[in-house]
Amino acid sequence: MKKFENIIILAAGRSTRFWPLDDKNMVKFLGKPLLLYQIEKLKPYTKKVLIIVSKKNIDSITKAVSSFQNIHIILQKGDGQASALLSVNDEALGETLVVNNIDVFNEKVIFTQIFKQRDKYELILTAKEMKKYFPGGYLRYKKNQVLELIEKPKPEKRPSNMVSLVVDYFANFSEFIDVLKSLKNPAKDGAFEEGLNIYLKKVKAIFINYQDYWYFLKYPWHVLSLKYFFLSQVKKHVGKNVFLDKTAKIEGDVYLEDGVKIYEHSKIVGPCYIGKNTIVGNYSLIKESMIGENCLIGGYSEVTRSYLGNKVYLHRNYLGDSVIENNVLFGAGAVCANFRFDEKEIHSSVNGDMINCQRNKLGAIIGSNVKIGVNSSLMPGIKIVANSIVMPNSIVLKDIKRSVLK
Amino acid sequence: MKKFENIIILAAGRSTRFWPLDDKNMVKFLGKPLLLYQIEKLKPYTKKVLIIVSKKNIDSITKAVSSFQNIHIILQKGDGQASALLSVNDEALGETLVVNNIDVFNEKVIFTQIFKQRDKYELILTAKEMKKYFPGGYLRYKKNQVLELIEKPKPEKRPSNMVSLVVDYFANFSEFIDVLKSLKNPAKDGAFEEGLNIYLKKVKAIFINYQDYWYFLKYPWHVLSLKYFFLSQVKKHVGKNVFLDKTAKIEGDVYLEDGVKIYEHSKIVGPCYIGKNTIVGNYSLIKESMIGENCLIGGYSEVTRSYLGNKVYLHRNYLGDSVIENNVLFGAGAVCANFRFDEKEIHSSVNGDMINCQRNKLGAIIGSNVKIGVNSSLMPGIKIVANSIVMPNSIVLKDIKRSVLK
Amino acid sequence: MKKFENIIILAAGRSTRFWPLDDKNMVKFLGKPLLLYQIEKLKPYTKKVLIIVSKKNIDSITKAVSSFQNIHIILQKGDGQASALLSVNDEALGETLVVNNIDVFNEKVIFTQIFKQRDKYELILTAKEMKKYFPGGYLRYKKNQVLELIEKPKPEKRPSNMVSLVVDYFANFSEFIDVLKSLKNPAKDGAFEEGLNIYLKKVKAIFINYQDYWYFLKYPWHVLSLKYFFLSQVKKHVGKNVFLDKTAKIEGDVYLEDGVKIYEHSKIVGPCYIGKNTIVGNYSLIKESMIGENCLIGGYSEVTRSYLGNKVYLHRNYLGDSVIENNVLFGAGAVCANFRFDEKEIHSSVNGDMINCQRNKLGAIIGSNVKIGVNSSLMPGIKIVANSIVMPNSIVLKDIKRSVLK
Repeated sequence: MKKFENIIILAAGRSTRFWPLDDKNMVKFLGKPLLLYQIEKLKPYTKKVLIIVSKKNIDSITKAVSSFQNIHIILQKGDGQASALLSVNDEALGETLVVNNIDVFNEKVIFTQIFKQRDKYELILTAKEMKKYFPGGYLRYKKNQVLELIEKPKPEKRPSNMVSLVVDYFANFSEFIDVLKSLKNPAKDGAFEEGLNIYLKKVKAIFINYQDYWYFLKYPWHVLSLKYFFLSQVKKHVGKNVFLDKTAKIEGDVYLEDGVKIYEHSKIVGPCYIGKNTIVGNYSLIKESMIGENCLIGGYSEVTRSYLGNKVYLHRNYLGDSVIENNVLFGAGAVCANFRFDEKEIHSSVNGDMINCQRNKLGAIIGSNVKIGVNSSLMPGIKIVANSIVMPNSIVLKDIKRSVLK
Repeated sequence: MKKFENIIILAAGRSTRFWPLDDKNMVKFLGKPLLLYQIEKLKPYTKKVLIIVSKKNIDSITKAVSSFQNIHIILQKGDGQASALLSVNDEALGETLVVNNIDVFNEKVIFTQIFKQRDKYELILTAKEMKKYFPGGYLRYKKNQVLELIEKPKPEKRPSNMVSLVVDYFANFSEFIDVLKSLKNPAKDGAFEEGLNIYLKKVKAIFINYQDYWYFLKYPWHVLSLKYFFLSQVKKHVGKNVFLDKTAKIEGDVYLEDGVKIYEHSKIVGPCYIGKNTIVGNYSLIKESMIGENCLIGGYSEVTRSYLGNKVYLHRNYLGDSVIENNVLFGAGAVCANFRFDEKEIHSSVNGDMINCQRNKLGAIIGSNVKIGVNSSLMPGIKIVANSIVMPNSIVLKDIKRSVLK
Repeated sequence: MKKFENIIILAAGRSTRFWPLDDKNMVKFLGKPLLLYQIEKLKPYTKKVLIIVSKKNIDSITKAVSSFQNIHIILQKGDGQASALLSVNDEALGETLVVNNIDVFNEKVIFTQIFKQRDKYELILTAKEMKKYFPGGYLRYKKNQVLELIEKPKPEKRPSNMVSLVVDYFANFSEFIDVLKSLKNPAKDGAFEEGLNIYLKKVKAIFINYQDYWYFLKYPWHVLSLKYFFLSQVKKHVGKNVFLDKTAKIEGDVYLEDGVKIYEHSKIVGPCYIGKNTIVGNYSLIKESMIGENCLIGGYSEVTRSYLGNKVYLHRNYLGDSVIENNVLFGAGAVCANFRFDEKEIHSSVNGDMINCQRNKLGAIIGSNVKIGVNSSLMPGIKIVANSIVMPNSIVLKDIKRSVLK
């Protein structure tokens, strides 16, 4: 296997659709930020990894990758994917793979195919067939030769069902950069696709019809799907200094990190992951969930099919199908409702539009540093901005967008 | 024992006082509709059973009795009890017993007495002494000879304390039918009593002073008394494929139907009946209750002295002294309050009047297909119409009469 | 040891700051009123105990002390401490110790010192150094000679940090009484201090610099500190006829009085005191709390660092850092919130002023005969008047001052 010269990870996207959660690169699964999984997965295939970051996440990402070698952090200048690649300058010239963000895919399947074809083509895209409409870039193609990439067409104008994963192989990356440099405004929407379409006319390009798994964090509830992907890899494990009361019960594959304490009569049903030093109080039920470090799952709490960050404090709560970031506190009796009484799919407001989350069950999505008052009720699909408060005994029917704590 | 020619069961009553519950004939106790108990009890004493039904319940009743022989279903024409009997036409002529609805009484005690007297009298009524006022038909009598039946007199105008059970023996039923036929308007209120009073002047009539148990479903909370009657017959039983966690506890006479599952740390205190395939989650307490089939008594729930139909779903709820019909869902944290803070007897609105339920403890009465929002509070004696919704975090102070789901 | 002639306990104070709790003399700790502890502690040091009482508490105190000998109950005439002492008349003449109320202090430490000095001084006060401002009487002194007592000076005008405990020794009490008699208006505010300051100019007076523990019940939340004092003396104990389910758990020093019953899966973590015949239902957690007689800690309840009087009924509640008097009922799902979301110290309104309770955690303070509706939420530091009701599903943001039940 001849390694790629470079793999470029695009990690500077603003992710407004991911609100109220923070930088998707740093969302932790099984205690580790998603970006590190990406790097560990890609590194064996390349001599160098370039990560394009933004002002907002440059510090956290630089710190997170500090133990790796041959990683270059590059601050993006200007908006959009074309600007991102232009920020690379001369650091990537030859064989280069451009990977969007921290999407999770089966790299072996893709790379095996790229390696087979790398000598014959100057551009190899990766695409997945999506029968249901997906808001991405669609390929117009003939046999497996790519003719054009059309970004977010209207559903009825899709040229095919093939959606680009943005795992793109360039045999001579500097040539593509030259095309991008020739664009009038590389910062405008669609500039990358414009450049790619110009380039497609010059070179021989094919695409790989990828049919394996693909997880992404476009919307915040996608954390729940990705949680399942990671939980499926979990095996039964009991860390150091774990306290497990003899009346507590563990069923299935449950990973208990060091210092976890589980008190009387609680039950954890796998697959589950419980982070370092997290305490599970009496009479608590946890099922198919991922819970971070230093959490307190206080007595009489139920956490079902949910994702909890670090320092989440529960007390007599029900959380179903919810995503909770760090340092969030629930007062006693607060409940995250997780299905609609009309039994329809949950919708959620994103940038002003009501989006169908395509889930029958979805609870709340809560940013960091939020406090939820006692006996309050959060309706399905509700999102709550970081650094805010929900009053006691209140019913939250709409997203909370105004921070009050900071 | 010479069998009666006919027993007529009056099962077509509109039961507006039984709202929000559905047809009282079909309320299930220990998994079987009340009407079937009545038929099984009466059949040995008669050659033929005639059931007078309405358009509303003809289908369900026809289906329910399909396995019995010598049962005639007769659709009632016109309103009231007199019309009901006139609908019989020539199907009942000779010795006939007319039984109101599905009231529960000790048939052996009554029939033994009727059999003793049947040859001497043309009409034998059954009455029970009611010291406290009861809204029924009162007998005016001399020794045990009946002179007149007065329907719902004002309390101070009661001719005696003897209230008719409507378990009436007619030696020659066709004679009484002829009287009813002579009435100007057999569909008007009190037509049956008018006919009976005319007939009483023509024939020798006595009444049986019945002193044993009598249960009826006039108001929906009467289901709770009848529940006790049936639960008192329950013996400890564990059906097939029952799962009982070793930390769960069964005390007293608890009948577990096939396929029941009871999870960790739950406790059931008899007398109780748990219907087929019902699941009792963790940390749940059930006491002196009757629960139907395919229910889910979700974790942290308490069901005390209550009646639950089929497919009732609880989750972290308290239900005390409540009657819940089929396919009802309670959101987490919803509570049925079951006593007044002024410690007075619970009252409930029936057809616009506030009725004293003569109970210190009474929870909610809920029709079928209702969804109760999380953290909501239902006040004592509240009734909720079928096919409706209670909003999350709400307090229900008055009956809910408007369906929204269908 | 030569006994004092008299000890006078001032027990007639109106205690408006102690609202909504009743007479602080009669607050029970470990099942016994505080006043009795005081009497038992002081009696060995005196020939006679005089208790100055008010019309309001004369009956309850007379009854409570009826088994003791050499106790004189004296009804106070007029307002204030000076009036209290003038009410004594000629019952106390010689060596007399005046003790304020039922404050708890280490009597051995104080009396040992007084006994050493009694022959040399006509007046010996007891004071404690308080670095933080405390609303009491401050000493102006030279060495340990007392020059003046200044009642509640502004913080910046304190003459020293020495605060009088009102444990005052008078060698010739009748002389001090003569001074009080000479005052124009002994019922006015500060009359006692005025008299004492006149007396200080006539006699040789010192103070004892007391450095041991001092507990008092100025504000109702002080019950929580005093609770800890008494709980620290508790040893593991199981009374007669105690029922303890084999799945229930007792940890640490828990005192179970006669007739206590503890049901399945409950847990009590010491130090705790559970009064006679109190029942702890299933799945309940009690921690560092003092609970009176005949309480029902109904299923799924949590009582943490709290004080409960007699006949308190809980059901699915959380009570943290709360003080509940007698005969109080909590509906299912009601919660006492016990910390502020801004993480500041709890404040509470006392006679119209917001007082800093100097506690990060404080729940509710509830008078006798109160009923709390289901699913209601009581905010930190809230106080509720006796004989009142909190509506279901309500949020209590301010003190409730109006009784409705009596």
